Amino acid sequence: MQLATFSYLGLEQVGLVTQGYTRIVPLSQLLGVDAPATMIELIEQWRELGPGLQAVTILPGTGLPVTDVGLVAPIPHPRRNIICLGKNYRDHVEEAAVLGGLTSGIPTAPVYFSKMIDRVRGSTESVPIHTGVTSMLDYEAELAVIIGRAGHDIDHGSVPEHIFGYSILNDISERDLQKSHDQWFKGKSLDFACAMGPVIVTADEIAYPPALDIRCSVNGELRQKAVTSDLIFDITEIVSDFSRGLTLMPGDIISTGTPAGVGMGFRPFRWLKAGDVVECRIEGIGALRNTIE
Amino acid sequence: MQLATFSYLGLEQVGLVTQGYTRIVPLSQLLGVDAPATMIELIEQWRELGPGLQAVTILPGTGLPVTDVGLVAPIPHPRRNIICLGKNYRDHVEEAAVLGGLTSGIPTAPVYFSKMIDRVRGSTESVPIHTGVTSMLDYEAELAVIIGRAGHDIDHGSVPEHIFGYSILNDISERDLQKSHDQWFKGKSLDFACAMGPVIVTADEIAYPPALDIRCSVNGELRQKAVTSDLIFDITEIVSDFSRGLTLMPGDIISTGTPAGVGMGFRPFRWLKAGDVVECRIEGIGALRNTIE
Repeated sequence: MQLATFSYLGLEQVGLVTQGYTRIVPLSQLLGVDAPATMIELIEQWRELGPGLQAVTILPGTGLPVTDVGLVAPIPHPRRNIICLGKNYRDHVEEAAVLGGLTSGIPTAPVYFSKMIDRVRGSTESVPIHTGVTSMLDYEAELAVIIGRAGHDIDHGSVPEHIFGYSILNDISERDLQKSHDQWFKGKSLDFACAMGPVIVTADEIAYPPALDIRCSVNGELRQKAVTSDLIFDITEIVSDFSRGLTLMPGDIISTGTPAGVGMGFRPFRWLKAGDVVECRIEGIGALRNTIE
Repeated sequence: MQLATFSYLGLEQVGLVTQGYTRIVPLSQLLGVDAPATMIELIEQWRELGPGLQAVTILPGTGLPVTDVGLVAPIPHPRRNIICLGKNYRDHVEEAAVLGGLTSGIPTAPVYFSKMIDRVRGSTESVPIHTGVTSMLDYEAELAVIIGRAGHDIDHGSVPEHIFGYSILNDISERDLQKSHDQWFKGKSLDFACAMGPVIVTADEIAYPPALDIRCSVNGELRQKAVTSDLIFDITEIVSDFSRGLTLMPGDIISTGTPAGVGMGFRPFRWLKAGDVVECRIEGIGALRNTIE
């Protein structure tokens, strides 16, 4: 099932994307006035609502054409910071060495950091260039894991039960701020410096662990290309390890890291500039396309 | 004005602490059914509600004895991760060198990281020892700045207008996890590994910039002692710099860093153990006392 958050007639709501991404059926049309108003509420109520939604037959012509609505990020307002991984593809570790100041080489434990974003951009929205704040804006295509069931100290075998679904996340980064502030937090958290979408695909539709083609292009030029099974620390390890002594909540977003090919990996560097179109694409999820403004 | 969140007859609510910290007056007693239910709501509505609350005359005997209620953290559920500073007192920079892996020496820019805490502990609550997850639990007494008015790119002169008040924060840290995961995020975010309180003191009661005695003792033994004006990057610089390209929100918590004297500064190290009582104290705000369990 493909789930999206969209804006229509001024109201933001959740819907099912159907018929080859051409139509969207508002949850309210299927569940009436008691439909969850946000994706996080839907995730929290999934155990009760999911089976019915999975079973419903949607006739052609139901809902709205996707082109008539504004797709926003599936979770536009994360309830807390996005949990991110750094240096989680081998070939990216080398190109990231330029950041300096950190232990070099292949990490022996997952490198977690957070991204504080009040409003995540969706697949039809722009990302600001932040002139005057950063001169090294960069892209990072990533597979995002959406947590479904709350839990801590999750053992390896139980990890799949805690995953609600998957999405594509562009972990927009400011390399100068990452470096100058030592810890990465500020250089990952400028306003709107994150895009996600176009949809969340529920976990039942993707074989576990996900081995999906992931790529990123800038203005049509392929920059990143990998398979999501090439992670140094795989999803089982990440969710289990991160949840040791720490409760993951429904709707938490874990972005699993980016492969090689980001702007800081080129010589000379290739930073994003106004007008650039960044497209992150993952097999079975779709394409997330954002213009830098 | 001293503001606290407290639990009474199973209901969590906000109140004014009066008469030398002996009594607490529920907001609902002053404002009726329209009283903000949480501290974040009160901060958001402060422009309308603040002047009236400041002007009210509270007669002796009004409200409840503080000893009859359970004080919880003033903001028990931060709306996003707590914004923290590392290495922001000169003498602490040296003792923190043991963490390794990071640029050494006095930082040339503020070191920001985040602390993901779903439920912050209050001044009468315990903090878990997290046996099996960490064996290097440590304390950090800090002055926390509470943001009142939203804003980004806040210039130096405007910083005081954006500050709602101040509190005491114990930035409980897991040194082994900070080090093994390279970035500090996971080693700062175990469940309940943060205490705050006992109150928020509104900004009008503390001369700006705050130059307050700050100290921390463990089982009555003084470990940390400094003045909050000894920050390497002061509050004006922090709020202005951090808000460049990044919108601060009402209720955001910025913890300004800890002085020397934490457990990792001793040889041998002095990690927290079950039964320890950690007391963080800041002049004009009060004492935050937590037992490690």
